[in-house]
Amino acid sequence: MMYAFKTGLSVATTLAAAALSPAVAAGESIGRPWTLEDILLVPEVNEIALSRDGRLAIYAAEIADEKAGRPQAVIRLVDIASGAQRDLRHANIAKLFQRIPGTNDWSGLLDIGGGLQLYRIDNAGSIAPLIVNPATVAVGRADLSLPVGGGTVPHHVGVLAYAWSPDGQWLWYSLLKARPTSPRVRFDEEVSAMSNRRRSTTEAEVEFYLRGPDGHSIKVMTRPSSDRMAMYAGANILWHGDEIQFRVEKPGGTGGGEFEVRAWDRQTGKMRILANEQDLQTLWLLKGPRGGELATSGNGDRPELIETLPGGPRHSYGRVGFTIGDLRSAGIKVSRDGRHVVLGTRSFGNPRYGLAMLDKHGVREIAGQGSLTRCGFDDDLTLALCVQESMTRPPALVRVHLANGKIAPIAAISPRHEEIAPLSVQPRTWVNRHGYKATGYVIFPRAYRKGQSYPAIIVTHGSDADDRFFDQGNQWNYPVQLFAERGYVVLLINDPWPQQADALLAAYKAWIRGSGPPGPETLQRLIWINGVHSFEDAVNELAAAGLVDPNRVGLAGYSRGSQVVNVAVTQSTMFRAASSGDGGFLEPAGYASSGDSYNPVYGGSPLSDHIVQYRRFAPSLNAAKVCTPVLQQVASASPSQAQLFEALRSERVPTQLSYYPGSSSASDETHLFHIPSNRLLAMRENMAWFDYWLLGIRDGDAPFPERLAEWDRMAKEAPHTCGPPPKF
Amino acid sequence: MMYAFKTGLSVATTLAAAALSPAVAAGESIGRPWTLEDILLVPEVNEIALSRDGRLAIYAAEIADEKAGRPQAVIRLVDIASGAQRDLRHANIAKLFQRIPGTNDWSGLLDIGGGLQLYRIDNAGSIAPLIVNPATVAVGRADLSLPVGGGTVPHHVGVLAYAWSPDGQWLWYSLLKARPTSPRVRFDEEVSAMSNRRRSTTEAEVEFYLRGPDGHSIKVMTRPSSDRMAMYAGANILWHGDEIQFRVEKPGGTGGGEFEVRAWDRQTGKMRILANEQDLQTLWLLKGPRGGELATSGNGDRPELIETLPGGPRHSYGRVGFTIGDLRSAGIKVSRDGRHVVLGTRSFGNPRYGLAMLDKHGVREIAGQGSLTRCGFDDDLTLALCVQESMTRPPALVRVHLANGKIAPIAAISPRHEEIAPLSVQPRTWVNRHGYKATGYVIFPRAYRKGQSYPAIIVTHGSDADDRFFDQGNQWNYPVQLFAERGYVVLLINDPWPQQADALLAAYKAWIRGSGPPGPETLQRLIWINGVHSFEDAVNELAAAGLVDPNRVGLAGYSRGSQVVNVAVTQSTMFRAASSGDGGFLEPAGYASSGDSYNPVYGGSPLSDHIVQYRRFAPSLNAAKVCTPVLQQVASASPSQAQLFEALRSERVPTQLSYYPGSSSASDETHLFHIPSNRLLAMRENMAWFDYWLLGIRDGDAPFPERLAEWDRMAKEAPHTCGPPPKF
Repeated sequence: MMYAFKTGLSVATTLAAAALSPAVAAGESIGRPWTLEDILLVPEVNEIALSRDGRLAIYAAEIADEKAGRPQAVIRLVDIASGAQRDLRHANIAKLFQRIPGTNDWSGLLDIGGGLQLYRIDNAGSIAPLIVNPATVAVGRADLSLPVGGGTVPHHVGVLAYAWSPDGQWLWYSLLKARPTSPRVRFDEEVSAMSNRRRSTTEAEVEFYLRGPDGHSIKVMTRPSSDRMAMYAGANILWHGDEIQFRVEKPGGTGGGEFEVRAWDRQTGKMRILANEQDLQTLWLLKGPRGGELATSGNGDRPELIETLPGGPRHSYGRVGFTIGDLRSAGIKVSRDGRHVVLGTRSFGNPRYGLAMLDKHGVREIAGQGSLTRCGFDDDLTLALCVQESMTRPPALVRVHLANGKIAPIAAISPRHEEIAPLSVQPRTWVNRHGYKATGYVIFPRAYRKGQSYPAIIVTHGSDADDRFFDQGNQWNYPVQLFAERGYVVLLINDPWPQQADALLAAYKAWIRGSGPPGPETLQRLIWINGVHSFEDAVNELAAAGLVDPNRVGLAGYSRGSQVVNVAVTQSTMFRAASSGDGGFLEPAGYASSGDSYNPVYGGSPLSDHIVQYRRFAPSLNAAKVCTPVLQQVASASPSQAQLFEALRSERVPTQLSYYPGSSSASDETHLFHIPSNRLLAMRENMAWFDYWLLGIRDGDAPFPERLAEWDRMAKEAPHTCGPPPKF
Repeated sequence: MMYAFKTGLSVATTLAAAALSPAVAAGESIGRPWTLEDILLVPEVNEIALSRDGRLAIYAAEIADEKAGRPQAVIRLVDIASGAQRDLRHANIAKLFQRIPGTNDWSGLLDIGGGLQLYRIDNAGSIAPLIVNPATVAVGRADLSLPVGGGTVPHHVGVLAYAWSPDGQWLWYSLLKARPTSPRVRFDEEVSAMSNRRRSTTEAEVEFYLRGPDGHSIKVMTRPSSDRMAMYAGANILWHGDEIQFRVEKPGGTGGGEFEVRAWDRQTGKMRILANEQDLQTLWLLKGPRGGELATSGNGDRPELIETLPGGPRHSYGRVGFTIGDLRSAGIKVSRDGRHVVLGTRSFGNPRYGLAMLDKHGVREIAGQGSLTRCGFDDDLTLALCVQESMTRPPALVRVHLANGKIAPIAAISPRHEEIAPLSVQPRTWVNRHGYKATGYVIFPRAYRKGQSYPAIIVTHGSDADDRFFDQGNQWNYPVQLFAERGYVVLLINDPWPQQADALLAAYKAWIRGSGPPGPETLQRLIWINGVHSFEDAVNELAAAGLVDPNRVGLAGYSRGSQVVNVAVTQSTMFRAASSGDGGFLEPAGYASSGDSYNPVYGGSPLSDHIVQYRRFAPSLNAAKVCTPVLQQVASASPSQAQLFEALRSERVPTQLSYYPGSSSASDETHLFHIPSNRLLAMRENMAWFDYWLLGIRDGDAPFPERLAEWDRMAKEAPHTCGPPPKF
C-alpha cells in the first residue's frame, strides 16, 4: 500500500504521457478497432531462411484456419529488395527452414498431408521430398498417440528434426519410430505411471541418422521418447571436425532433468561423453566465438555474459542488459568462420527481443522498434531478415544490417492487422510491498479519458507479457484487445522474475529440482503469494492514480497463470471475477500425477501429515474463503480442475467449469487451444463472464446464453461477495 | 479362537469322512489330474431353449478360445431323447435364446461378425437375420466405446435385447444407437465426471421398439445409457393384455438406484407408471401365480416367500430354504396358463442352485445332484432341460420332470472335464468369533493323507463360492484346482452373508445407499474386518484339526475379494502371501471416482477431517503394518492400485503390481479377464507367487522368471515378516 502512495505522482505523470502519446492521438483517425477475428488471425512466424545470395528468403506464417479447424502454415517466398511476397503453399505444419549449404535451395519440415517429413524447396518454390519416413507416429493428446507436450496439436511425425553440416554434404536427422506394440504384461512403477493415463497411447523411439555425401545413411543411436532433448531439440547439434556434438537427457533425472553432452565421431562411429549438465536453462547449444558455451549468469538486471571453455576456464564479456537462450528470441547463429556469433536476446525492464553480435573481443547490441523475434541470417553474419513487432505494431519483415545495426522495413506480414488503430500501451515495472519487481503493460481503454477511472482486468502468465504484438501463450483465450476496446484497462503482469533476487531464484530452483530448501511455506510465499501481492499493489497504485476502479477488477490467467489466479482468489478479496485457464496445479488431486513438483511446495503427499500445508494453501481446501466468482475453461477436465470446481460449488461460490472438446472424441483440445471455433467461443465466454460479474452487463454476444440463468442463480445464492455486487 | 476349539471334534470327523468319500477313493484310479488348460476351458452355458415339441433344444456354451484371443460361443443343437448333439456354429457372443412362439424356430442374439444382432435359428440349424441394426455401437473398455460394466468384453452392439409376446405375434426389442458425437462444450458436473475418464468414449441411447403382426415397428421410447435397466435388462418385460410392463431406472438415484415400473399400452401408445422402487434385489421381474411380484424376505436361513399383489396386499407361501432372483440361478418361467411358475433358487448352507415350482397354493422344491444352473422349459412347465453341475461334477445336460422332480442325465457338455478325477471337496459353514456364519468349501490336496498338515490358500469373492463346477467370478485367476493338485488345501470362503442378521444387512444397505447409519466404524468392522476374522477363525479351526499348517497360509481374492485381502494384510499377521486381483476400493485415491460408495465407509472425503477414518482403515495408509507380501494383478492400472503399490513399496513390504494388457492398446483386459493368454499367465503367476512365499519354492514354470530376482531382493529387504520365512 505504502508503495502505491509513494509512486502515485509518477503514475499520474505516466498517465498524462499516455494520453498524449502518438498512438492514441492518431488511433481513432487512422485505423479501425480490433475484432475477435483479428485476435484469432494474428500470424506466428517460425524460422526464416535466406537464400545463398541473400536476395530471397523463405518463411512460414502460422494462422488459425477456421475451415481447417486448426492452424495452417502458409509458406512464403519474399524478395528482399522489393518486399514482394508469394504464397508457395499451405501446410499443416511448416518448421525448421534452413538453407541447404552449397545450393540455392532450402529445406524444411512440412506436414503437407503425409505427416511431418523433410522437403527440399527450390528458389522457384517447388517442393520435393527429401527424407520421408512413411511409418509415421501419431503424437499429441489423442487416442493411440505418443503423449507429448500438452500444447502440441495432434499430428503425425515421420521426420522429427534435421541439420546440415556446414558444407552441406552431410545430413543429420532423426525419425520417430513406433515401438512394436504387441501387448505385454507390465510391472510395478511402469504400471503406477499408467494410473494417470487419460487416453490410449502408443510408444515410440527416436532414431538418429547421419547421411553422408554418398547418400547412404547410418544409424547413430536410438533414444527413448522420454529423452526431451531427442524429442524437442534433435536439430541442436554442433559440427566439430569429424565430431557431431549434441545433448541427450539421462533417464531418472529430476524435473529439471539430467543431461549429457556427447560427441559422435562420424569416421570411427565412436561416442564419447563431453560433459554432464542438469537443470538446463535452454534447449539450445550456445556456442561462443571462443569455442565454449555461452550463458548469462548472476542476478539483477545486468547479468554477466560468460563463455565457458572446454575444460572449465571462463571468459567474461562483461555485464549485459539481456538474457540469451530464450526460446522466444531469434536464436543463435555462428558465422562461417566461427569468429562471429549473433544471439537472440531478451531485455529486462520492458521485455523486448533483440540481437547481440559477439566476437572474441566483445558484444554489441542491436535493438529494433519493439522486438526482433525471428531472423534468418547469411553465413557471414552481415545481413538478417527479421520479424519486427511490438505491442502496438503487427509483425513485419525488416532487413537488419548486422554490422551497423540499421534496420529497414521490407514488407508487412499481416495486412489486416496493419489496418487496426493501435491501442495505447504503457510498459511498466511494478515493485510490490516486498520490494519484488514485476514487469508488464498497461493497455488503456480505446476511449480512455484522463481523470476517468475504468474497470480493469489483469492477465498473467509467468513471463511472456513482453513487447510482441500478440502471444497466445500470454493472453490465451482472454481477448485482451477487445477488453480494451470495450472499456477495460488491461494489465498484463508477469511474475516477479526469478533472477532479481537470490531468495526468489532459490525458491524456483527448489521447485524445479523437486526439493528444498527453502521449505514449503517459503515457496508458497515467494512463487505464488508474491505474485498476488504484485497484482494487489499494482491495482492500488493505478487506483490511487485514478485510472482503475478498484471495485471492478478481474483476474485471468492460464496454466502458470491459473495457479496464481487460483491462489489469488483464496488470498485476496480484491478480485470481483476470475478466469482460470486449464490449470489445476496445487490441488491435492494433482499429487498423483506430479508428485515431484508438489513435494517442494507442500512437503509431501496430501494423505500424509503434510495435509497441514495443503489445508493452508491448496485453493480447493480454502474454497470457503473465496468471494470471487471463478470460471475455469479447460481442455483436460483433470481431477484437479474437478476438485476445485466441486469445492467452490459446495461453498456456493459462483463458479463454472467449461470444457472445450477436441476435434473429435478421439483427440483433445490442446492446453494452448488450437481449434479456432473453441478459441472464439472461449474468448466470447470470457468477455461475457467479466462483463457480467464486473459490470453487471448481460452480454448479448454471450456464446452460451443459457448459462446466464445459472449465473443469476449463483449470484443470488453466493453466501458472500468480495464487495458490493455490480448493478444490473 | 474359542470357536475353533469348540468345533475341533466335528472338524476331525469331517476330515475322516472326506478321506473316505467316494470321490477321493475313486479319484486316483478313474481319472486324470487337473491341468491349467482344464481350468481355462470350462464351458459356461447361457440360456437353453426347447423346441415346441420338446424333442430338441438349443444352447450355447462359451469357452475360452486361445486362437481367437477371447471366449467363443459354440451353438449346439441337442436331441433330448438320444442326447446326441450337433455344433451349429461358433459365435463371438450367443445369448438370449428363446423359442419363437407358434413356430418351430428359435431366436437368439448372436455376434457372428456384424455385432450383436437378432437371428432366427431353425430346427435344421440354419441361421438367418431377424432384426439387424447395422449402425452398431462399440461397448466395453476400449477407445471410442460406450463404457459399460468392467467385465464386458469389448464388442459391438446392434440389438441389445428382445422378447416375444406369448402368441409370437409381437416382438419387443431394443437397439443401441450412437448419439451424434459432434464435439460440444460441456459444463460443470458433466466435466467433473469426465475427470476420471481413462479412455475416449462414445455416447449412446437405448431405443425400444415394438414390432406388430404386420411387421411394422414403432418406437416406444428412448432411454439414456445410464439407465441400467435399459442397458442390461431390456428383455425383462411382462405381457399383460395390451400392456407391456417393464422397469426403467430414474436419473440421479443413489448407488442402489431408483426405478419405475411402467406399463405401455400397445393400442393407445400411452405410458403409465405402476410403481416406484429402489435398491432392487434383482434385475428380473418375478411374476407370481397370483399376478403379483415375488420376493424372499426376512433374515436368517428360512426367509418367507412373499407375493406382493398390485395395490399392496401380500400373500405368503411360507418359509423356504432359498432365495430367488439370483442371476446365477435358472431364472423364472410362467406357464402358458399363468397358473404355474418355476423359479431358479439358491439355497443356504451349501449354496446350491435348484428349482421351485409354485402355484397359488404352495411351493415345491426340485433339487439335483449339486446345482441346476441353467434351464429351458416347455410352455406348460412339465419338462425342463437343465445344466446340472457341482463342485466335483462338470456341467452336463439333464432332463427334469417338473411334476415329480425326477432328473435324468442326457449328455455331457464338456467331455474333457469328464476325464478328470474329481478332487475331494467338503462344503462348510464357518462361524467366526462374533457368531457370524460364512459358507464355503474345503478342497483337499490331491494326495491328502490323514494326519498330515498342508499349506493352505484361501480364495474369496463375496458370495460365489457355491456348488458349481467352476466360476470365473469366484476363482478368477487363482488356479484353485491346481493348488489342490500341487498339495495345497484350498479354502473357498464367502463373506458372512448379509441376510443372517439385521446389523449386517443394515451395514450393507448403508453401503449400497451411500449413507449411514450405521456409521463408518461399524461398516468397516462388519463388512470387511468381519470377513478377515472369518478367515482367521476358519484357519485356526482347520489348523487345530491338523489339516492346515498355520504358518503357510495364503489369501487371494479379486474385486470384492481384493478389498478383503487388502484389509486382511493390514489387520492380520496370519497370511504369509496374498494376491489381490484388480481391486483398489478403499484406497483414498478412489474417492474421486466413487465418492458415493466411500462416504458411508469413511464419512466423507480423505481431504477433509474424515482423513482420521482413512488413516485408521485404508490399506495404503496402513502399509507400515503389513507383513504379508502382496501381489496385485490388475487390468485397470487405477490410481488406487498404484497408491497401494507405492505405499507398500515405500515401506519395503514385498509387493508386485502386474498389469495385464488388452488385446491391443485400443482396449483393456476386462475386470474378469477374457483374454486366454492373460488368464494362463496370471494363473501361473499366482502359482509361482504362492509357491515362492509359502513354500520357498522357485517355480520352474514361473511365467516371468526374471521377477524371481526381484522377489529375492524384496524378501531380503523386508523389514519384518509375518512369521518365520519359508525355507529355500
